[in-house]
Amino acid sequence: MTSARPLRLGVLASGSGSNLQALLDACARGQRDASDPAALNAEVAVVICNIEGARCMKRAAEAGVPAILLKHSGAPSREEYDARLVATLQRHEVELVCLAGFMRLVTPVLLRAYPDRVLNIHPSLLPSFRGLHAVQQALDAGARIAGCTVHFVDEGTDTGPVLIQAAVPVLDGDTEETLSQRIHAQEHACYVRAVQLIAGGLVDWTNGSAKRRTTVRLSAGLPSESSSRLVWPPLAERRAGGIA
Amino acid sequence: MTSARPLRLGVLASGSGSNLQALLDACARGQRDASDPAALNAEVAVVICNIEGARCMKRAAEAGVPAILLKHSGAPSREEYDARLVATLQRHEVELVCLAGFMRLVTPVLLRAYPDRVLNIHPSLLPSFRGLHAVQQALDAGARIAGCTVHFVDEGTDTGPVLIQAAVPVLDGDTEETLSQRIHAQEHACYVRAVQLIAGGLVDWTNGSAKRRTTVRLSAGLPSESSSRLVWPPLAERRAGGIA
Repeated sequence: MTSARPLRLGVLASGSGSNLQALLDACARGQRDASDPAALNAEVAVVICNIEGARCMKRAAEAGVPAILLKHSGAPSREEYDARLVATLQRHEVELVCLAGFMRLVTPVLLRAYPDRVLNIHPSLLPSFRGLHAVQQALDAGARIAGCTVHFVDEGTDTGPVLIQAAVPVLDGDTEETLSQRIHAQEHACYVRAVQLIAGGLVDWTNGSAKRRTTVRLSAGLPSESSSRLVWPPLAERRAGGIA
Repeated sequence: MTSARPLRLGVLASGSGSNLQALLDACARGQRDASDPAALNAEVAVVICNIEGARCMKRAAEAGVPAILLKHSGAPSREEYDARLVATLQRHEVELVCLAGFMRLVTPVLLRAYPDRVLNIHPSLLPSFRGLHAVQQALDAGARIAGCTVHFVDEGTDTGPVLIQAAVPVLDGDTEETLSQRIHAQEHACYVRAVQLIAGGLVDWTNGSAKRRTTVRLSAGLPSESSSRLVWPPLAERRAGGIA
């Protein structure tokens, strides 16, 4: 029900691209029916990948989106690589950059070209478990509730302002693989919702990037408190037997 | 539907005692109807408080539970204070110690007397935001999902094995007070569920206390994955307007 033109996304990926697929699907829903609550008023203008043969390239091609392979072997420094990234993004008139499993640290070259316009998704409830192997970190810490976070990228590792989070219960017997799978499913919903918030003009950056740990404000108009909460483990059946 | 005798709890508190009240209420439900899923097959054997006039004392008295004031001014050291604590707990045949807003660090004197039998509740999703002012820490970090944790107490500050956690959304405009209130409501449910797990014999300590960050195993018999998950902020209404 909006006449605003679609927000142009640039998605950077290195692997299978399941978050890319979630964004592509939500954009397609938006083209079919703008009033669909799971739709996105956006379009993926370009997908950039640094790994030859990665499945994300195929997903982009299948969706009719330009898929560009930008190997780092061709760039003598991270900064020069990012300069090529920026040139490609700008050539496709990208407004918002979405890192989606892009296994490469970005530099200020990208962040200065897209200030407060680079999103990342991380498989933990930040600030817990930054960096690599976040899901295994959560298991090692004995967390009962894990999750994922969409955040704005700053120059630190997973330190930028949080935009949205999802909670996922840890099950007894979970391995890095089984828990990662359940978190991934939430990542897809989270990333779409995060871009919805931005495309819908609901994010206020006025206080956003001045310093680390500044929170991102969401404009009024969001639904008030949900009744859904998560207690984990859930209420157990009563059993005979006292304390072990 | 169980014939096991009630687990004897010792609750240590310093303040208003709302978590104590939740435990007292659940114990009372257990006496009325053991099949009530919100009931606890336990009884509060004693409440110990270190602050004269604290409301928790009144709550204990109203429930007909011995309420003992143990001021630290009478003990020359933390260890001697804890020795008096242990003597009082043992005199009341306490099997499980529940810290419920007890504003005092405990020492190995208590932990050795009740190995793996001291629980605490903390208003964050540990390991995030340990120590004081956890709710303000979460707000300062821009977390979108906060929560609370019931954990076993070890010699660190909020470092012991996690038993149960609850997630609580952070609302835009939340203050330490408003967010604390919503977390408190979940604390009550969490603490009751944590004690249910222990009273029901569902917690396996075999791997529990050998070292920090060891996870507590829950026995089989817990419900499998809940369908409830929490994504925050929730899906926003679509709005006109592109990126700001």
